[in-house]
Amino acid sequence: MARHDEPGPAPAPALTAGWLDAVRWNADGLVPAIAQEQGSRDVLMVAWMNREALAATAARGEAVYWSRSRGRLWHKGEESGHVQKVHDIRLDCDGDVVLLTVSQLGHEPAAPSIACHTGRHSCFFQRLEGQHWRSVEPVQKDPELIYR
Amino acid sequence: MARHDEPGPAPAPALTAGWLDAVRWNADGLVPAIAQEQGSRDVLMVAWMNREALAATAARGEAVYWSRSRGRLWHKGEESGHVQKVHDIRLDCDGDVVLLTVSQLGHEPAAPSIACHTGRHSCFFQRLEGQHWRSVEPVQKDPELIYR
Repeated sequence: MARHDEPGPAPAPALTAGWLDAVRWNADGLVPAIAQEQGSRDVLMVAWMNREALAATAARGEAVYWSRSRGRLWHKGEESGHVQKVHDIRLDCDGDVVLLTVSQLGHEPAAPSIACHTGRHSCFFQRLEGQHWRSVEPVQKDPELIYR
Repeated sequence: MARHDEPGPAPAPALTAGWLDAVRWNADGLVPAIAQEQGSRDVLMVAWMNREALAATAARGEAVYWSRSRGRLWHKGEESGHVQKVHDIRLDCDGDVVLLTVSQLGHEPAAPSIACHTGRHSCFFQRLEGQHWRSVEPVQKDPELIYR
């Protein structure tokens, strides 16, 4: 976050764009963003975006989220290589949830794509069965090999 | 909320179930729930659930959300007739987002289903085009006819 402590240019024009004002940011200035895979139409993950992240996502055509744990912008795939190419950005009726249509990149050809930090295709791999959550998706790649 | 003011039986066993403890409820005791349509695989909407709503959803096999505006449980379709039959409940890797696979009921046969209070199929009908959100889904039914 060092750049916020240094004198610098005014915010990029993209951050003052009117379409960003249509989003109903929560008290922390964030909005949840769903990434849905083009083709399979699987819901891959949900992460947070702030104004800067959404503007960056639209500008570069790749998903950029706000990492709450790291307190900084997170260009998805910056460490894992699992970049998300963005085809479509939608906003819901209340303006408080974003839906991205993405191509999930960076995995082995002919293997399922990997969106989850656990090495699975989708983050939604826990299925309620009776009174238990059961993991129903295989790990495609050992996370230690993804984040080394 | 009257029932909370009246003496009554202890909380139903379902509310103390261990699988509900696996959910990472936010500071308000809520978790966002995505409803994805079986068949079309369209993402229809996102709403909030508290512990009671998620337990009720699992127990009755129909989506029950927590209405923040009304401050009460909201059995989706209770006014509109647009009930969501739930086939599958998933939890993401962090335990803080729920994904439902649903059949969206209550619409005219052979017409698209209606999940949105605006009378549209999906709540995600605003598409970012250049610097503007454009409404790209038709209203299937006048909301005044839905909520009369």
